Amino acid sequence: MDYNKEALKAHEACKGKVEVVSKMKLENKDDLSIAYTPGVAEPCRKIAENKEDVYKYTAKGNLVAVLSDGSAVLGLGNIGGEAAMPVMEGKAVLFKSFGNVDAFPICVSTQDADEIIQTGINIAPTFGGINLEDISAPKCFEIEEKLQEALDIPVFHDDQHGTAIVVSSALINALKIVEKDISEIKVAISGPGAAGTAIAKMLMSLNVKNIVMCDRTGIIDISRDGLTGHKLWLAEHTNQEHITGSLEDAIKGADVLVGVSGPGIVTEEMVASMNKDAILFAMANPIPEIMPDLAKKAGARVIGTGRSDFPNQINNVLAFPGIFRGALDARASRITEVMKVAAAYAIAGLVSAEELNEDYVMPSPFDKRVAPAVARAVYDAWMKEVK
Amino acid sequence: MDYNKEALKAHEACKGKVEVVSKMKLENKDDLSIAYTPGVAEPCRKIAENKEDVYKYTAKGNLVAVLSDGSAVLGLGNIGGEAAMPVMEGKAVLFKSFGNVDAFPICVSTQDADEIIQTGINIAPTFGGINLEDISAPKCFEIEEKLQEALDIPVFHDDQHGTAIVVSSALINALKIVEKDISEIKVAISGPGAAGTAIAKMLMSLNVKNIVMCDRTGIIDISRDGLTGHKLWLAEHTNQEHITGSLEDAIKGADVLVGVSGPGIVTEEMVASMNKDAILFAMANPIPEIMPDLAKKAGARVIGTGRSDFPNQINNVLAFPGIFRGALDARASRITEVMKVAAAYAIAGLVSAEELNEDYVMPSPFDKRVAPAVARAVYDAWMKEVK
Repeated sequence: MDYNKEALKAHEACKGKVEVVSKMKLENKDDLSIAYTPGVAEPCRKIAENKEDVYKYTAKGNLVAVLSDGSAVLGLGNIGGEAAMPVMEGKAVLFKSFGNVDAFPICVSTQDADEIIQTGINIAPTFGGINLEDISAPKCFEIEEKLQEALDIPVFHDDQHGTAIVVSSALINALKIVEKDISEIKVAISGPGAAGTAIAKMLMSLNVKNIVMCDRTGIIDISRDGLTGHKLWLAEHTNQEHITGSLEDAIKGADVLVGVSGPGIVTEEMVASMNKDAILFAMANPIPEIMPDLAKKAGARVIGTGRSDFPNQINNVLAFPGIFRGALDARASRITEVMKVAAAYAIAGLVSAEELNEDYVMPSPFDKRVAPAVARAVYDAWMKEVK
Repeated sequence: MDYNKEALKAHEACKGKVEVVSKMKLENKDDLSIAYTPGVAEPCRKIAENKEDVYKYTAKGNLVAVLSDGSAVLGLGNIGGEAAMPVMEGKAVLFKSFGNVDAFPICVSTQDADEIIQTGINIAPTFGGINLEDISAPKCFEIEEKLQEALDIPVFHDDQHGTAIVVSSALINALKIVEKDISEIKVAISGPGAAGTAIAKMLMSLNVKNIVMCDRTGIIDISRDGLTGHKLWLAEHTNQEHITGSLEDAIKGADVLVGVSGPGIVTEEMVASMNKDAILFAMANPIPEIMPDLAKKAGARVIGTGRSDFPNQINNVLAFPGIFRGALDARASRITEVMKVAAAYAIAGLVSAEELNEDYVMPSPFDKRVAPAVARAVYDAWMKEVK
């Protein structure tokens, strides 16, 4: 199937993917008097008396804003708010289909971090959570942090944490196959952007001790000049052995390679230089860092990509619907590291020991157990953490 | 029926009134590849190439933001964004039910005019129109004007124009009953807020020449000290005979009294002092300026209110769904005076000469002809105006 052609046709036929419908019937005067004036004044009064009642009488508790400035969309780059709409609508309908979360696209015209933060703060009364999407690094870090600080609803940059969670799930299961201890592996990560940085942080939470990050210049190490912001943070917290050099040097002897960078930048030689039973997650979309068949030939044992047409699709849709479902149900004020780790283990746990093999480390996005399992884990983690 | 009690129960049962659903099915990998990655990249690319295509491939063209800061809600006053949610959700579901417009509540936490304007500008890529709602005067005037100036989508403050349109419709039909010429009537308006000011402007568009506005201090005249902003504008454009005094003086000899002020402030004596065949629209909600039975006894011939339990309900729901339906269909960049006048006549025109009587000057909100007729009139008016 030519997805581009079909997608264009389908989008034009639907004129967009989201629709806002009523949960109350509106067929006669009484209905109107209950849903609108004069009856509606009563829930308004209750909320004015006690703000918490907004969760009782409005849709807020199940509404998530999918907020983007379109500055870093898929493989498309900075295409702006309007052009990002199809993606944000897509995200919204995935939220609904997989997590029964009512999500709504908010594509903004500004690309200024402070303006985006202020907009998020301003529209927050409507929403029970904010999913940041396709916002470029490094501003995405600041936006998420400041927005979360200002608000008492969860703020979650899916490109960071959604990706980190599903990569973690895949790693947890892949390590079972190769029978390596997570605390002893060496992980190379190509691409220290939003996803790469979040993956590094999450792997640390999972007890990975040896992580080497690479950007276009090569290995990130504290000895490198000119590091600032999140790259400085990475230099301070990864590469404890202080190796230097290129991506090639980073990969040599690694147990795991995670690519969140660009198409085709990993060669067969690099994969062959990895440790025995190498695990490779080549996440660049739509063209991975190395094609799975080449990686296999070069000796990688478990290979995952972001694509649905290869085994082991590592797809955020396994995470975000359940994450928000759980966080909204728990009325969590944020999504903590513990909740993310719980989500990663919940996804991994859906692949049984009998089913687990090199070509099956992740459940299918259409496995109906996924979102409930993630939601449950996230809900329980919050409840345990705040109690 | 106890609407307050029923509304509270219904709102709690539904947990809010809006739901965001998918227009595309999402049942298998192919669906996912079309609605989301990788297929979604293609409509994104098209829009990035040509911004206008956002209307072709996304929901923007049918999405309206119902934007409020909750500073002037119904009879409740300044209750803030959260407490305004039930009203904005209600508005959204009326938009959908009556006009098939996908409307979404955006309740903001700020009450600063500039911040609200900036928020509206920032979120505009998502929307085909912005309906401002329950924002207090005088800042509502500035917000509407500046937001409309900044955007190429219609911005419409319903409390102003929606009300003005339905009052105009009621007046057009009431004048047929009393057989008076619109250019010769004297109209007193009690309440120079958002609604009152818009009504005055709209009546001028309809060729009413003699309008006297009253606020709490009394008649607004250019001779009064300290008038600024919209009251100064009203002083300059109304009360050509420069009468002074109280509401009582304004009403004396008037053919029409429009109340958009407060409960019970009009007495039987005042109504009795009006011209023969007086028309009275007492719009204060839920308790009108004078109860219809008292007004009738005092000699008023046609009486309308905002309430559904009296004859001649003058309800914005007759206007806004069709207005936006027509404006969105025409892809109008704003809603002009001519479009509003066309809408007023379209509503009035749905009451036939045979049906028209003192107790029936307005069609029912459930008359299914209303929104399409208004939409058609608004669409045609825009097309005629811009061609």
